[in-house]
Amino acid sequence: MTTTYHFQTVKHIVHGAHSLDLLADKLALLDTPVKRIALITQPAMEQLGVIDRVTAALAQKDVEVLIVRDVEPEPTIGNVESVFSEQIAPFAPHAILSIGGGSVLDAAKLFAVRLTNEQPLREWLGIDLIRKPGVPLILVPTTAGTGSEVTPNAIVTLPDEALKVGIVSRHLLPQLVILDAALTLKLPKAITAATGMDAFVHSLESYISTKANPVSDMFAMESMRLIGANIVEAYEHGESIKAREAMMLGSMYGGLALTAAGTAAVHALAYPLGGMFNITHGVANAMLLPHVMAFNMDACAGRLADVAHALSLCAHDDNEEAAARKLIERINEWTAAVDIPQDLRKFGVSEDDLDALAVAAAKVKRLLGNNPKPLSLDDMKAIYRRLLP
Amino acid sequence: MTTTYHFQTVKHIVHGAHSLDLLADKLALLDTPVKRIALITQPAMEQLGVIDRVTAALAQKDVEVLIVRDVEPEPTIGNVESVFSEQIAPFAPHAILSIGGGSVLDAAKLFAVRLTNEQPLREWLGIDLIRKPGVPLILVPTTAGTGSEVTPNAIVTLPDEALKVGIVSRHLLPQLVILDAALTLKLPKAITAATGMDAFVHSLESYISTKANPVSDMFAMESMRLIGANIVEAYEHGESIKAREAMMLGSMYGGLALTAAGTAAVHALAYPLGGMFNITHGVANAMLLPHVMAFNMDACAGRLADVAHALSLCAHDDNEEAAARKLIERINEWTAAVDIPQDLRKFGVSEDDLDALAVAAAKVKRLLGNNPKPLSLDDMKAIYRRLLP
Repeated sequence: MTTTYHFQTVKHIVHGAHSLDLLADKLALLDTPVKRIALITQPAMEQLGVIDRVTAALAQKDVEVLIVRDVEPEPTIGNVESVFSEQIAPFAPHAILSIGGGSVLDAAKLFAVRLTNEQPLREWLGIDLIRKPGVPLILVPTTAGTGSEVTPNAIVTLPDEALKVGIVSRHLLPQLVILDAALTLKLPKAITAATGMDAFVHSLESYISTKANPVSDMFAMESMRLIGANIVEAYEHGESIKAREAMMLGSMYGGLALTAAGTAAVHALAYPLGGMFNITHGVANAMLLPHVMAFNMDACAGRLADVAHALSLCAHDDNEEAAARKLIERINEWTAAVDIPQDLRKFGVSEDDLDALAVAAAKVKRLLGNNPKPLSLDDMKAIYRRLLP
Repeated sequence: MTTTYHFQTVKHIVHGAHSLDLLADKLALLDTPVKRIALITQPAMEQLGVIDRVTAALAQKDVEVLIVRDVEPEPTIGNVESVFSEQIAPFAPHAILSIGGGSVLDAAKLFAVRLTNEQPLREWLGIDLIRKPGVPLILVPTTAGTGSEVTPNAIVTLPDEALKVGIVSRHLLPQLVILDAALTLKLPKAITAATGMDAFVHSLESYISTKANPVSDMFAMESMRLIGANIVEAYEHGESIKAREAMMLGSMYGGLALTAAGTAAVHALAYPLGGMFNITHGVANAMLLPHVMAFNMDACAGRLADVAHALSLCAHDDNEEAAARKLIERINEWTAAVDIPQDLRKFGVSEDDLDALAVAAAKVKRLLGNNPKPLSLDDMKAIYRRLLP
């Protein structure tokens, strides 16, 4: 008998290079009419002229737009609350539109439900604590990495605890997603690398998760095929729309996979690196990935070998462990090729910090529970230590 | 550059053997509270005790249930309208729940929107003519075939024109789907065969459709892998939950694929066989499938070869046409193994009917437009004639 699982997703996904040009027409897909939209975005999109194009198209449909640019990268709960009360709430928008990276999309999700729910964000930390659906929400990712556009999650930073925490609720899913890889053609190399590796982590962790199921497996595998075949190309030749399209789709599938199966120890160990040392989420995940997988090896060699076979990394007659090792080698090759740092000292981490990092990571019990192999504090310290070579 | 496409789907899918037992708890996923449900079903489910179990569980949550059993197989528009006005409308349910095969699910979709829209069904024939969203809709398929639970389509029969026609609207998508393969363990062999082959047709036609895209390709291919590996097992050993699970998932993926890419000539030629000779949809599709694919061969050998490779039906060094022919051979083996009829005479069709059949099929322009190769009236007659051996 299969274990029962629940797959939830977005009702409408529009995909194609330059599909953002269809946005104004696609508003008709929303269940309620929209005449006032708050557009949550970031300066890079304004510099590219994207925001002018969108607001002009919306103006033609008599839609009034408020542009909101003050969400910080990996925002604190205070930042989200203050932008909400100072800008979003007074405008009383009918819908929230967000064009940006994962942090901006996550904040937009919270704004949409904050408009219909009285509680402050702090009461939502955890799973299923948001009571009512939000206003219609449209998400347009501008990085190929977080998969945030299709997840019911928003990550916020608690500065006083130096920790990133998740708000998980079905009410955070958007009504419409537009995947326009043309928006990623100018993405800086470092962001292409970190977000692309992050997406791969989502899929690989979903695939080895204790909550993996047939639906998450399908998305995870297709995501890894796409990312594996395109990440180096997207990094080296950023203007390749073909590589960017594949990364965008691979990233979305990664989001669908993690929604169904959850991420695991890589994410649990990455959060304290973000909270305590401001290492961006994608970089922290990418640094940890090969070391956590090497640790996991004896618990999930068969699953790692599946991936190695699907990505044609090994011979048909390799045994499980040999195949799994080839996957880990390939991950190391990718991270070298896309210049992911390998030394935590660059970010100010020293041997003296390992206890505190491990203690903080151990608190991320929900994700550690998805890992195929339990981790002791010493295991976690040993993994971090691999990144102090 | 990719062509832009739009992928729409269901927000919540619960999957697992015996997951129907979770129904009452899962009502909390709906956006509005539900205290009165019309349950559209069919006698077989009552005989299995399924309906008693569901109504008892709903009663415990103080939900009142009206059981509606009068939707006919492949219903006429008149049947749907009369069941609506005589039973559904007077009960004024907050939600529609349907546990049944494709016809029953399709009727349930129409009831849900009929409760919030004044127009008669006849005005909805075609695409996007339903104005408002319906009441919340929960679909539980009891065959693994139509994929209706995840499509925005409902098929109705117009008896005066002896034709089946489609109503297509995003408002026909349910809010929640429960995929419980345990409901299919007692399915009669002939229905297992026809519905299973029908699901394969959905996926293969989506994969060769002129509207195929990366999302539909992924679902179509995974669907064909699952069905190809399990259809004969599900037919021969109906109590195999493993085979039934795979068929249920394969059928849903087929529905997702066709939602994104559309079906093509097999479906166009099958509709008149249903409308004029009462051949069930799955049987008509299964009979036509190998012959339409043989006709299509020169237009899509590469795509048919992809499928042959994914299903491990051919050698690595087979050329496209050789690989494609092996797929068609395998389809013929399946239809023989699951006893799909091969002779239209059994259903009263004779050479004299071929003109009328081809003329009727030629009217299904929307689906013929998805076919990779255009079909003349003579082409269609030649295909039907293959089934008068």
